[in-house]
Amino acid sequence: MKAEIMAVGTELLLGDILNTNAQYLSRELAALGVSVYYQSVVGDNEARLLNALQEAFNKSDIVITTGGLGPTKDDLTKEVGAAYFNKKLVLDEASLKNMQNYFKRMGREMPESNKKQAMMPEGSIILKNNNGTAPGCIIEEKGKILILLPGPPKETVPMFEESVRPYLKKFSEGILVSKIIRTFGLGESAMAELVGDLLNRENPTVAPYAKDNEAILRITAKGRDEAEANKLISETEEEIREILGDYVYGEGENTLEYVVAQMLVDKNITVATAESCTGGLIAANLVNYPGISSIFTHGVVTYSNEAKIQLLGVKHETLENYGAVSEQTAREMAEGVVRLSQARIGISVTGIAGPGGGTEEKPVGLVYAGMCIDGKIKVKKLNLSGDRQKVRTRTMLTVLDWLRRELQEIKR
Amino acid sequence: MKAEIMAVGTELLLGDILNTNAQYLSRELAALGVSVYYQSVVGDNEARLLNALQEAFNKSDIVITTGGLGPTKDDLTKEVGAAYFNKKLVLDEASLKNMQNYFKRMGREMPESNKKQAMMPEGSIILKNNNGTAPGCIIEEKGKILILLPGPPKETVPMFEESVRPYLKKFSEGILVSKIIRTFGLGESAMAELVGDLLNRENPTVAPYAKDNEAILRITAKGRDEAEANKLISETEEEIREILGDYVYGEGENTLEYVVAQMLVDKNITVATAESCTGGLIAANLVNYPGISSIFTHGVVTYSNEAKIQLLGVKHETLENYGAVSEQTAREMAEGVVRLSQARIGISVTGIAGPGGGTEEKPVGLVYAGMCIDGKIKVKKLNLSGDRQKVRTRTMLTVLDWLRRELQEIKR
Repeated sequence: MKAEIMAVGTELLLGDILNTNAQYLSRELAALGVSVYYQSVVGDNEARLLNALQEAFNKSDIVITTGGLGPTKDDLTKEVGAAYFNKKLVLDEASLKNMQNYFKRMGREMPESNKKQAMMPEGSIILKNNNGTAPGCIIEEKGKILILLPGPPKETVPMFEESVRPYLKKFSEGILVSKIIRTFGLGESAMAELVGDLLNRENPTVAPYAKDNEAILRITAKGRDEAEANKLISETEEEIREILGDYVYGEGENTLEYVVAQMLVDKNITVATAESCTGGLIAANLVNYPGISSIFTHGVVTYSNEAKIQLLGVKHETLENYGAVSEQTAREMAEGVVRLSQARIGISVTGIAGPGGGTEEKPVGLVYAGMCIDGKIKVKKLNLSGDRQKVRTRTMLTVLDWLRRELQEIKR
Repeated sequence: MKAEIMAVGTELLLGDILNTNAQYLSRELAALGVSVYYQSVVGDNEARLLNALQEAFNKSDIVITTGGLGPTKDDLTKEVGAAYFNKKLVLDEASLKNMQNYFKRMGREMPESNKKQAMMPEGSIILKNNNGTAPGCIIEEKGKILILLPGPPKETVPMFEESVRPYLKKFSEGILVSKIIRTFGLGESAMAELVGDLLNRENPTVAPYAKDNEAILRITAKGRDEAEANKLISETEEEIREILGDYVYGEGENTLEYVVAQMLVDKNITVATAESCTGGLIAANLVNYPGISSIFTHGVVTYSNEAKIQLLGVKHETLENYGAVSEQTAREMAEGVVRLSQARIGISVTGIAGPGGGTEEKPVGLVYAGMCIDGKIKVKKLNLSGDRQKVRTRTMLTVLDWLRRELQEIKR
């Protein structure tokens, strides 16, 4: 089966929104073993949309559209789709009722114009919308399949998962399973060089991606069933972990901050933070983890020298002699936050995030990070590049990755 | 002039990457007054790519491709583009030299395979790549224009700005200027209802968008020159600001945290934060602003009761009698952080971000925020919905918006 994904909406052609649905649907179809040969975007225009459907069905068996199911006269994907297959639109009572209930839950009156959204192509499979007003539908005719989905991703994605994926499974030849392996500290090309020949395999395939500040690998295996695909994946995963070792911090959707927070909680190790240039970013990312309250008690943002002295007991002379951005200050901050919190681990950061404040000796991007673990203090000097936000984010991630490596050695 | 934007790359069809180039180029072409009627994505396949070019030129005058200019045999956009116009590929000495210099700067030997990237369609306009190896090019033939750009956005965007925008200006009819007006506290539909008829104007057009936690309006005016377009925009902007009043917090790319931090710095008002469930998020967002050090001195993350008592002087009895998530605790936290920092404004947040920790009386999403301004304390109760991250982000933004409104009343 060949498929095309077609987004309908002038706002996409104006660049007002990003077509994230195309990526989502492409990935999901690939996982189902349905080949996507084309993606397209067309405006809210009857003639052009009809023409686009014709071209798409010349090339593909399945066309999945997103958008244009709304209540206004600009929304005409369903009308054009029905016309393409010579279907009338008929009122679907169940959809109307769902919609009325939806408005009732919102405590609002349903405007008359919304009734249009319950008019569905005759004989189509209706896809219930649990997150908005517009139902989707599937039209099957002469070996061609048109699947109409709403445009807002918070409606598109659940509708795909609840109704379209189960529907498409019958067309899937074998099963594809993917697994993401996440690394920190390696660039995409450095990682690709290390894994080398693995990237040329056919089943499973191994593909490298750079994502913000990390490099990830996606392993995709095809099997007759999930067990077979999973077995292929775990063999390759083992090889990859052998090669990349400590660079691998996690898998799937788990972020670095999630993994580190989980290690802290699992090992029941208390931690406290003292941040200057990151301004609370490390604390805020640890607090993303739901169970963190048991081990994260104190965080301070000591942006000024006064706060460093007052809250952390950094010595006046240290600031005077070495400056706020120095190994010595980072050391005293880490020590100080442990004294304040009685945590087993104290983390400190002091640096120059820019754009101002840099000197030849201490340029923008110079950061000192300190870690006091069970009374032993280490300090690392980082030289980071990029704008203020990049330096701060990169600092946060580098410190969390350092913490992750230290935690591997520490017993609960 | 009608244009189509065509991305070439199987990785897009697999959903491995998001097609941000399409959004960028669409927006830029709209600003130049070039209408984009279609976007498409096609894989690295000669026959399908050739067919896609044919279909595109049947409908449009200009086709801009991204991707497929690399050194491998999978990269064939240039080859197919040249074949479509019956052009030979000839070695471009200048491009070869640039490429050799590029590798020299990187301290690496240029692989032989990269020479392919300097083979350009004869008679084409070469577009220098200052951020990678693949030059782009423009082929003009019989009223049709094919513009070939590299795929990585960090190469696509600068090449467009340096070479393609100046080239396309001659096709632009009049000039389009856009301005973004940003609001907080209104949903997209509530904002749309308030501005009402303005949304039906033709010049300037006014379009509403929902973006994460805020609603924005884009005003787009067409004029013979920038001055005319700007005049049209400022008239409409005035009407919008009249209608939306205080909901408008800023314009352009300035975020809420940026605007608030700027107000604090401009008015020279010192601020300190005491955060529980937001875990440093308010501090971290304020610290995004480069000049913040002059007025933001102390931030504390008091996730535990002990830290609230120890650092902020919250009374044991208050925590006992009312709980950590209560109006009384928020009040004492705000007071406490002012006492600690001597700042003019103290901000406090305590709440239940979930997923656990909620009760019938105090459900997930219940947050108390406090503000102590020149000794006067106010507390707000928020009931927010969404997952942990949403509750925290929404709290941060709601508190910053509250601070913005208070700052309007405060003199420096």
